[in-house]
Amino acid sequence: MIQTLTQQIEALASGVNSSSELAAGSLDRAARHAKLNAFVALDPDLVMRQARAADERRRQGKALSPIDGVPIAIKDNYLTADYPTTACSNALPLERQGQDATIVANLRKAGAVIFAKTNMHEWAYGATNSASSFGATRNPRNPDHITGGSSGGSGAAVAAGIVSAALGSDTGGSIRIPSGACGIYGFKPSYGRASRNGVLPLSWSLDAPGPITAALDDIIHLMPFICGEDGNDPATLRSLAFGPVGRLDRPRLINLAGEGLERSDDVDGSFLSALRRSGAEVTNRELEGVSSYFAAWEAILHCEASSYHAELLARNPSGFTALTRAHLEAGTRISGVELLKAQRIRGQLTTQLNGLGDWDALVLPTLPVVAPKIGDDWQTFGGRRVTTQDSMTWFCWIGNLAGLPCISIPCGSSPEGLPVGMMLMGRYGQDERLLAVARWVDRRINMDA
Amino acid sequence: MIQTLTQQIEALASGVNSSSELAAGSLDRAARHAKLNAFVALDPDLVMRQARAADERRRQGKALSPIDGVPIAIKDNYLTADYPTTACSNALPLERQGQDATIVANLRKAGAVIFAKTNMHEWAYGATNSASSFGATRNPRNPDHITGGSSGGSGAAVAAGIVSAALGSDTGGSIRIPSGACGIYGFKPSYGRASRNGVLPLSWSLDAPGPITAALDDIIHLMPFICGEDGNDPATLRSLAFGPVGRLDRPRLINLAGEGLERSDDVDGSFLSALRRSGAEVTNRELEGVSSYFAAWEAILHCEASSYHAELLARNPSGFTALTRAHLEAGTRISGVELLKAQRIRGQLTTQLNGLGDWDALVLPTLPVVAPKIGDDWQTFGGRRVTTQDSMTWFCWIGNLAGLPCISIPCGSSPEGLPVGMMLMGRYGQDERLLAVARWVDRRINMDA
Repeated sequence: MIQTLTQQIEALASGVNSSSELAAGSLDRAARHAKLNAFVALDPDLVMRQARAADERRRQGKALSPIDGVPIAIKDNYLTADYPTTACSNALPLERQGQDATIVANLRKAGAVIFAKTNMHEWAYGATNSASSFGATRNPRNPDHITGGSSGGSGAAVAAGIVSAALGSDTGGSIRIPSGACGIYGFKPSYGRASRNGVLPLSWSLDAPGPITAALDDIIHLMPFICGEDGNDPATLRSLAFGPVGRLDRPRLINLAGEGLERSDDVDGSFLSALRRSGAEVTNRELEGVSSYFAAWEAILHCEASSYHAELLARNPSGFTALTRAHLEAGTRISGVELLKAQRIRGQLTTQLNGLGDWDALVLPTLPVVAPKIGDDWQTFGGRRVTTQDSMTWFCWIGNLAGLPCISIPCGSSPEGLPVGMMLMGRYGQDERLLAVARWVDRRINMDA
Repeated sequence: MIQTLTQQIEALASGVNSSSELAAGSLDRAARHAKLNAFVALDPDLVMRQARAADERRRQGKALSPIDGVPIAIKDNYLTADYPTTACSNALPLERQGQDATIVANLRKAGAVIFAKTNMHEWAYGATNSASSFGATRNPRNPDHITGGSSGGSGAAVAAGIVSAALGSDTGGSIRIPSGACGIYGFKPSYGRASRNGVLPLSWSLDAPGPITAALDDIIHLMPFICGEDGNDPATLRSLAFGPVGRLDRPRLINLAGEGLERSDDVDGSFLSALRRSGAEVTNRELEGVSSYFAAWEAILHCEASSYHAELLARNPSGFTALTRAHLEAGTRISGVELLKAQRIRGQLTTQLNGLGDWDALVLPTLPVVAPKIGDDWQTFGGRRVTTQDSMTWFCWIGNLAGLPCISIPCGSSPEGLPVGMMLMGRYGQDERLLAVARWVDRRINMDA
C-alpha cells in the first residue's frame, strides 16, 4: 500500500513519523527498486541532513508548512541548488547550475526534503522515457513495460511508493502520460499559472510544470507551492495564487470522440465503465479537425524546441541522441508562415472547445493503450498503427495546445493488470474547479469501489 | 489657416457653421486640391446627405456627440458600409465589403460625416505612398514631394485643410510618417487599445489604427471613438476606454541616439531647437542594438504579411505590384526559428526601453529627412545612404515593435520650407499620459512661438 502525501503530512503533524523516518523509508525503497532506474541523482547524506533539520524545526514548534519534512523528488529538468541538472542529456545544458527553479525554491522554503532528481526522456523531447543518458526507466507495475514520459522517473518513483510526490513537466502530456501508464495521479496546471523559471524548456508556449502524486488530495496540498505570479516567468503575470478547491454537485462531463481519438478496446472498456460508475452527467461529443490541431501542436513544439536548442546544437551536436538531433534539425525547416498558421489554428481549438456548450470538464482516456513493452516501437489500436511515441501523446497534446488544466487519475486496469488512466480537462485558468470535479469523480470510481 | 476639429466642433455647437457648410467646404477644397490625389472614393451626394441629416439632428437638439456633423476621411484599408474598400490594390481584398470597421461604425454612430476614402500605399506595405493602384499622393507643402505613407492620402487631406481629421493605420510609422512629412499631427495608440476589426491587416502583431489631425486637441476629441474593448479584435481584450488627458508638470524626456538613429543636419537642427524651446527636462541616452531590433521588426512584418496574403497571392498574383509580390514571396522564406528569434528580440526591446529609467516620453525626430522628392529612390544623411522606403520608417518602427503609444507633432521646417516632425513615445497603455506630455510640449514649441 502506497503512502500518500496526505498521510505523510498527518503522520508528521501527529508525531507518528519523523521526517527522518520518512526519508529513511524513501531511501530504503529507492535502493530496493534501483532497477526501475527512477533516479539520476540521489545523495542519502544530503537527504538525511534535510530530514533532520525538518525534525529539529518541528521539535521547536517551528515547522515551515504542513509539508515540512516530506521527501519530494524532482524531474531532472528543474534546476536544483544541490543536485546537478542534466535534462538526462549528454549535451550539457547552458543554464547556470547551482540555483533552484522557482517551484523548487518554494518547496524548499516550505521545508520539503528535496529527495532526488528523477530520470526523464532526453530534454523532455519524447514521451517514452526510453531515450535518456541514464538509460530507460521501468514501470513499477511491470518492469518489462515503459513508464511513458517524459517525466517517467517521477512517475516510477511515485508508483513504486518511493516518494508520495514528485515534480514533472508537461508539453504534450509528459506529466499525465507516466501518471496514466503507472496508475497514479498527475496534474498539468493551466498555461501560465505555474512558474517555469529554472525549468529547462522544451516549447515555451506549451510547457507547464506540475505534480505527480499518489492520491488526488496530494495535488491539492502541493499546488499552493506551484501556482502563482513569478516575475521571472513572464507567462505567469497576473497569475492567481492557488485558491480553495470547493465541493460541487454532479459535474457535467463531455466525453470526446472522433477521428484521431481512437483507443484500444481494453482501454475503452475500463474508461467507459469508470465513467458510468462515476455517476457524472456525461454527454458524448465529436471533436472535429484533430489532425489539423495535432499538426499545429507539432509545428509549434518543433519550432520552439529548435529555437531554444539552436546554440547548444551548434556547439555540441554529438551531445544529442540521433533522434533528438533529427527533431531539432527538422524544426529549423518549418517556415514562419507555417508557424503563424499553426498559431492561428491553435486559437480555433480554444474556440471549438469553448463552443461545446456548458461543461465542467472534458474527458478522454489518458492513453489509447496501456503501457507498451520496452522495445515495442509500434502500437495498433482502433484501426490505427502508430509509433509508440505518438501513442503516448495521442490525447494529451490537446490540453497543451489549448493551455487548459488537465489531470490524469487511475480508472481501472487491463486484463494483464496494467493501469488505465482517465484524463479530465478543465476550463482555462480554473484549475481549482477542475480539481474539484476530479475529486468528485475519483471518490466514486476509486474509493467506493 | 487650416481649421481644426476643435474649431469645427465649436462652430457646430455655437451655430456659426452647419455641418452642410463644413461638408460643402471640404468638397470644395477637395476639388481644388484634386492634383494631390488624396482621395480614391468620394461621393459628394453621399457626403451632403450625411451632413444634412446631422444638421437636422442638431436642429432638433438631438446631436449624437460633439463631432456630430464633422467630415472625417477614412484610409482605404478600413471597411466602410458605403464606399468600396480596395487597400489601393488591384488584387481585390477577400474581406466582405459593405460593412463598417468598428472604428468607422463608432464614428458613424457619433454622427461624423464619413467623407471619403483616402489614398494609401498598396496594402499599407510601404511608406512612400508612391505605389498605389490610384497613383501617388502629392505633398500639400510642395507637390513635387511625397507625402510619405502608407496613410499618405489621409495626411494630404488634413495638411491641405480639406478635412480636419482622417483615419490612418500604422505598422511601422504609417500614421506618423505622413504626419511628419506634411507638418500635421498623427497618433498611433498602444497596441491593442484600438480595434482593428474591419481594418485590412498588414501585420497583426504590429498594426494599430489611429487619427491624423490638424491639431493636438483634435486627437483627444477623437480617441473616445477609437479606443476600447471590441469582441471582434482579440488584441483589445481588457483594453480600457479612453480616459481623461490630464495636466502635468515639466515632463522628463529621453532623447534617443545611437547607431542606426542618424538624421540629416536640417532635421536635427529643427528638432534640437524645438526640444530646447519646449523647456522639458531632456536626458540624452544611447539606444543599443537598433540594427538587430530592426531586423526583428522586418521579420515579423514580412512573415505576418505573407501569412495573411497567402491565399490572395495564390489566387491573384498579378493583382499585386511587383515589389509587393517580391516582399510577400520573400516573407515565405523566413523560417519559424528566425521568427521566434525575432519575437524574443522584440521582448528585449521592451526591457531595454523600460530600463532607461524614469521617463515620461522617449523622443526622436519623426523622420531623418524632410519629405523626399517624388522619384528620389535614395536618401543620404548622417553618413548613411538608404532607400527612401527605409528612410521613412527609420525611427518609427521602434514604437510598433514595442507596442508603445506614439505621436508625431510638427516642430519646425527645413530651409526649403518642408516640415520637420517630432515623435514622442509613451509607456505601454498610457496613451492618455503621452497625449498630456505631447500637449505640454506642443504648446511651448508651436503656440508660444
